[in-house]
Amino acid sequence: MSRYLDMVDSPSHVKKLTMDQLTDLSVEIRHELIDGLAKNGGHLGPNLGVVELTIALHRCFTTPQDKFVWDVSHQVYVHKILTGRKDRFRTIRTTGGLNGFALRTESEHDCYGAGHAGTALSAALGMCAARDQKGGDEHVVCVFGDAALTNGVSFEGLNNIACTTKRFIGILNDNEWSIAKNVGAIATYLGKLTTSPRYNRLAKDFTSWLRKLPKGELVSMLGAKAEEAIKGIASSLALEPAAGADSDGRGGHGSALLFEEFGIRYLGPIDGHNLPLLISTLEFAKTCTEPVVIHVLTQKGRGFEAALKYPEKFHGLGPYDVQSGQPATAKPGSAPMWQEVFGKTMVKLCQQNQHVVGITAAMPSGTSLKLLEQALPKQYYDVGIAEEHAVIFAAGMATMGFRPVVAIYSTFLQRAYDCIHHDVCLQDLPVIFCMDRAGLSANDGPTHHGLFDIAYLRCLPNVIGMAPKDEDELQDMMFTATLQKHPCCIRYPRGNAEGVPIKEVPGVVEIGKAEVIRPYRNNGGRKVALFGLGNMLRVAKEAAVELEKDGCDVAIINPRFFKPLDAATHQFFAEAAEVVGTLEDHVAMGGYGSAVLELLSDHGVAVAVVRLAWPDVFVEHASTVEYLRERHGLTAANLVRQIREKLAGAAQAGQLTGGLRTA
Amino acid sequence: MSRYLDMVDSPSHVKKLTMDQLTDLSVEIRHELIDGLAKNGGHLGPNLGVVELTIALHRCFTTPQDKFVWDVSHQVYVHKILTGRKDRFRTIRTTGGLNGFALRTESEHDCYGAGHAGTALSAALGMCAARDQKGGDEHVVCVFGDAALTNGVSFEGLNNIACTTKRFIGILNDNEWSIAKNVGAIATYLGKLTTSPRYNRLAKDFTSWLRKLPKGELVSMLGAKAEEAIKGIASSLALEPAAGADSDGRGGHGSALLFEEFGIRYLGPIDGHNLPLLISTLEFAKTCTEPVVIHVLTQKGRGFEAALKYPEKFHGLGPYDVQSGQPATAKPGSAPMWQEVFGKTMVKLCQQNQHVVGITAAMPSGTSLKLLEQALPKQYYDVGIAEEHAVIFAAGMATMGFRPVVAIYSTFLQRAYDCIHHDVCLQDLPVIFCMDRAGLSANDGPTHHGLFDIAYLRCLPNVIGMAPKDEDELQDMMFTATLQKHPCCIRYPRGNAEGVPIKEVPGVVEIGKAEVIRPYRNNGGRKVALFGLGNMLRVAKEAAVELEKDGCDVAIINPRFFKPLDAATHQFFAEAAEVVGTLEDHVAMGGYGSAVLELLSDHGVAVAVVRLAWPDVFVEHASTVEYLRERHGLTAANLVRQIREKLAGAAQAGQLTGGLRTA
Repeated sequence: MSRYLDMVDSPSHVKKLTMDQLTDLSVEIRHELIDGLAKNGGHLGPNLGVVELTIALHRCFTTPQDKFVWDVSHQVYVHKILTGRKDRFRTIRTTGGLNGFALRTESEHDCYGAGHAGTALSAALGMCAARDQKGGDEHVVCVFGDAALTNGVSFEGLNNIACTTKRFIGILNDNEWSIAKNVGAIATYLGKLTTSPRYNRLAKDFTSWLRKLPKGELVSMLGAKAEEAIKGIASSLALEPAAGADSDGRGGHGSALLFEEFGIRYLGPIDGHNLPLLISTLEFAKTCTEPVVIHVLTQKGRGFEAALKYPEKFHGLGPYDVQSGQPATAKPGSAPMWQEVFGKTMVKLCQQNQHVVGITAAMPSGTSLKLLEQALPKQYYDVGIAEEHAVIFAAGMATMGFRPVVAIYSTFLQRAYDCIHHDVCLQDLPVIFCMDRAGLSANDGPTHHGLFDIAYLRCLPNVIGMAPKDEDELQDMMFTATLQKHPCCIRYPRGNAEGVPIKEVPGVVEIGKAEVIRPYRNNGGRKVALFGLGNMLRVAKEAAVELEKDGCDVAIINPRFFKPLDAATHQFFAEAAEVVGTLEDHVAMGGYGSAVLELLSDHGVAVAVVRLAWPDVFVEHASTVEYLRERHGLTAANLVRQIREKLAGAAQAGQLTGGLRTA
Repeated sequence: MSRYLDMVDSPSHVKKLTMDQLTDLSVEIRHELIDGLAKNGGHLGPNLGVVELTIALHRCFTTPQDKFVWDVSHQVYVHKILTGRKDRFRTIRTTGGLNGFALRTESEHDCYGAGHAGTALSAALGMCAARDQKGGDEHVVCVFGDAALTNGVSFEGLNNIACTTKRFIGILNDNEWSIAKNVGAIATYLGKLTTSPRYNRLAKDFTSWLRKLPKGELVSMLGAKAEEAIKGIASSLALEPAAGADSDGRGGHGSALLFEEFGIRYLGPIDGHNLPLLISTLEFAKTCTEPVVIHVLTQKGRGFEAALKYPEKFHGLGPYDVQSGQPATAKPGSAPMWQEVFGKTMVKLCQQNQHVVGITAAMPSGTSLKLLEQALPKQYYDVGIAEEHAVIFAAGMATMGFRPVVAIYSTFLQRAYDCIHHDVCLQDLPVIFCMDRAGLSANDGPTHHGLFDIAYLRCLPNVIGMAPKDEDELQDMMFTATLQKHPCCIRYPRGNAEGVPIKEVPGVVEIGKAEVIRPYRNNGGRKVALFGLGNMLRVAKEAAVELEKDGCDVAIINPRFFKPLDAATHQFFAEAAEVVGTLEDHVAMGGYGSAVLELLSDHGVAVAVVRLAWPDVFVEHASTVEYLRERHGLTAANLVRQIREKLAGAAQAGQLTGGLRTA
């Protein structure tokens, strides 16, 4: 049986289908989403929720002239399918395939990329300002979730809309979920709007506008069933009597409309799965000469039972079974995830010390801090997608003797950079940053890789920066951090840890002290010192095996700290070496290896240094970390090759037989 | 005549004065502010506005047990005067004197420091959470300005208050000004509340609470004139009839109360210069078992005519005449400020190219972008204290062919770090960052020094980073930036530029190309290469004079770019040198000198390098930049000393006669 989906190769085709055909198309797209993502996983839930909305958008607007700006943009799969990328849809988030987010370089229909939350309103407003400067007439539509409103950037955007432009269309895609269940006052407020939509300004203006439209236009807008559709729209918009109005007479939801206080017209709430209603509301919004926000209620996971039942799990997930929705089971005997060890250690530390608390910015599952929520809810805080608040809130608690552990992905912690500087480090407060996803998030790509944290943190005074070689050391470092009087940062990657046993009782790691995994053997071989930070220690060990085959005398050091560096250990092994290798899961510019260069220079040690680290490009997405490491040279083989070159060069020049003091 | 102020050495003394005496005290404090700041300047306007508020706070609460968290904290002068620091007040912002902001290390009464906006609500909430965890009964009071509400962090805090604690006292100090006149929807909204306070929930509950208090308690709270005070309070709280109510019957200010939508009880607005009213409202707030915000209307500059007339000028200023309020005049013949050159260049560039626009985050005066506002208002945007929005808004405009210039102080740009990464660099958009105050802001101190931007920016792919040696080069770099297709960052310091002539028509600087100020003379002297970035080129020249007296052959290079580095020029001069000196107005860790070490290591050039840069500590405030440079070793003399040591060491070892390739 042929599908409408097979016929839709560009947004213009969406405009040619009847309302019935569009409804069929929405069913086909849902099937494609559920079936197409089963093998590799992806953001299934959010995309199932916006099928009708995305169809309606492409029905009413014309990209790339009109602009769609998607907040976070994990909900753009349907948009990708409708804008010429359906044939590549099943490659999404895999090597060489479609990116899982909007990406300017991927399509002219993706006018703005994202991966972090809260940016869409401001970006769209910038486009409106540019359009207004040019006197253009294109529409800019910003689709943002209710969770984006827990983020301060969205409010900065809202505050500037009314004073910047008269033409702005915002769509609040409200599914009551952030990634986890949404938190905070705004969530409560939206809940009230949704359950008691008695004060609905939309109804009056909108239905009168609808009734005034020529019949022909209505038919072309809403398809063959125009008359019927109008009836449906009118009834779904009927004003309920304000019987339950508050004593102040302000309508039933206890309060007025937040958006109107920002000078923005509010339309809604409307059913986000009612195509004719969506289409006619969007058409109405196009005619507005003041900024509008349409409040659209959608169901995360709509059309897939398992996803409706477990919205958090199906927000973004790995491979699953199409029938049952069950995730593919982990390989038996796999090492635990770093995240799991982090979560369990938090429970352990909070049980032992009531001044330790855990703070997440809407990532209880991703970080595994939900283990703490389950075990000790009083010592757990989820503040919403509000990284800045999370860090300052932690700083406030730290002034009162607490040891707050802020669990935020490395890349999202960038949001709170000033707070780390101004609130935590400058006041030298003992806040602990557990930086999950330090390294690659392969499927997600550049918006999610955490490759910059050493560079942006180590320049800040008072910081103690650590990276564990394995999960037992992670536990030790977390425990150690709770004993410090200074800010501590611990970086660890996504995925499986090393599979080592974890001590029942965590130990203390000496601050600023590296661990010598293997000293020189002094066997007459040419000396090479390898410093492998965190998860790269494993790569150092692999390289050592190869270099030893060449007859080299290889020392292996686990630096443990990227700040303060263990000066004595670095100096000792570097001075004896012909070549030093530093390894880190971080960009080369300003990273750990760069810190080693500073140390060696300051101590007058002149030795050839090979820094194995990520190059000065934004690393793309791919199916696996291994692929990207291979492609960008973060392998033992590449390190060995470079060290051999340096050794050959030194031998040829006959100059160096050891680290040389330059002065 | 003796003053009450002379008798007040601690907050406990404030509690002993009668209401009349407190009124006299407020007059004395105003005089002390006006007179005491005349010589060195400071944040006069904001502090004149909070005299009564601060007295009332210390009357009603007991620090350090109770906590006062001040947003930005430039309004803490009165608090400092009342908490045992009045004898040192006239040392404020000078070398060894009081800091101009709240500072934890300065007094136990300063429980939280700040200098950047928007952090107070989150920090105070953290303290409330800690208190609640411990079961404590202390009060936490957060004083934040209306401008803080243009900042997203404040909204993240607001969103979390109601779900975190039941006891929170916020004071919205509303003077309608940010640093410049406040902007955006929230400002409009607060204006409406203020001019039509007809819906005033405060009145009913509060007056009934007041009437129920035993007379003795009232007298002790409000002093001898209790009866009279109550009368005044009752009349100032009288509910006006809601005659002008909106058609929806929601009261006269067009909308309901923003704070109540965040689940926070709103009290106000009240007159912030009425001491009995302030005191009784605070006492009432202490009894509330839900979070409250008291909306206090204050007058920036109250009690000083000149400051009332020019609130922006008197927000923070240098020395002035106590009688006329006139600022001390600049020395004749001084070089122009970097800021002035920036502002004039913006006008020039925007006139020539209508796609260039200027964006400020509430700093039109500080950055001098007000020159653009005056000349070409259409190409000018003030977005409020909203650095993240500013950057993303710019990114949005850049996608539409514009060249937005974002003028933000180096330290405040940290707020937008993720936006620079995620929105600008990752999408490789041609946004131009003009980073004012890169280097020291001596009087302000560590919250305002801009010493980290090279480290946090140069790790990001696609960035072009520049620093001009003088104001003419600033103009050239700004013009050059408008021609690029990539993100550009230009850092320049506060204060006077070099006094060189500025070309009528700006020139183009070749990207990634350093300028050789003086090559080697090849006169047989020992070779030293000095790379002086930006304003440090002047120090390099001073050092060269000294080194030449030793007979050295000194090359001087203006690197111009901290990214991309001019590899060929750095390599050429370093290879020939016995010692390389790098100079930068930035921390040593991860800075320009560190980039040079990376380059030399990657190119196998082994040479002694002296990096003159700020050490790994937070640099304190002081009267002058010169003092701090001297103290922390950023001087030509210190560079010369270190280079001489390296030269002596090399000569002794007899090892090096030039840059050596390590491999």
